Amino acid sequence: MSKVNIAQKLTLFSDHWSPRIVGELNGQQVKLAKLKGEFVWHKHDIEDEFFLVISGTLRMEFRDRTELISPGEFVIVPRGVEHKPVAETEEVSVMLFEPASTLNTGDAESALRKEELERI
Amino acid sequence: MSKVNIAQKLTLFSDHWSPRIVGELNGQQVKLAKLKGEFVWHKHDIEDEFFLVISGTLRMEFRDRTELISPGEFVIVPRGVEHKPVAETEEVSVMLFEPASTLNTGDAESALRKEELERI
Repeated sequence: MSKVNIAQKLTLFSDHWSPRIVGELNGQQVKLAKLKGEFVWHKHDIEDEFFLVISGTLRMEFRDRTELISPGEFVIVPRGVEHKPVAETEEVSVMLFEPASTLNTGDAESALRKEELERI
Repeated sequence: MSKVNIAQKLTLFSDHWSPRIVGELNGQQVKLAKLKGEFVWHKHDIEDEFFLVISGTLRMEFRDRTELISPGEFVIVPRGVEHKPVAETEEVSVMLFEPASTLNTGDAESALRKEELERI
């Protein structure tokens, strides 16, 4: 129930594509992640995902279009929709909101999969 | 699936203590609200609530202590915990994340209750 400072939490890790858990409520988790480069195409069959950009510009690619998401903007990716997050030129920090069951790589077989996320 | 700009959404309304819905996922809603003055003491029996401060300083009072929450900070209020949000001197803007069933006034009988929230 203590407050969480997002910028302070972001100083606690530096690796990319490895979300940290910073809050939990109603079976959902609040996560922070740092992104750099291209992730893999994937989808989540039963989870909708919320991405709020904290710093940098996130390019969220969908099969039919691309969204450029700046700090203070968010996008919700519905379950079943293929997407690929890209942080092309600079590191991007995001806050995620999604069910506790959500795997970062969704249905993709990828070495980027993180099974156990650290709580910070 | 289009991106949402929080600052732009906040230009679309000016009344206090009247959350607007700006996103939905996994049975949860993303809401924006402007706060000014004191709300009522209340709790939510089955919902945890997430408050992210966008602008201003939110004073979240609990029965045993108070948290001052600045922009870029969030607090999660667990179900069953009495709380009273206060925006003492300046208007405060917050992003809320909570189940779609959540009433703004929780268990409190109050004229501040909003039954039907607008989607913007």
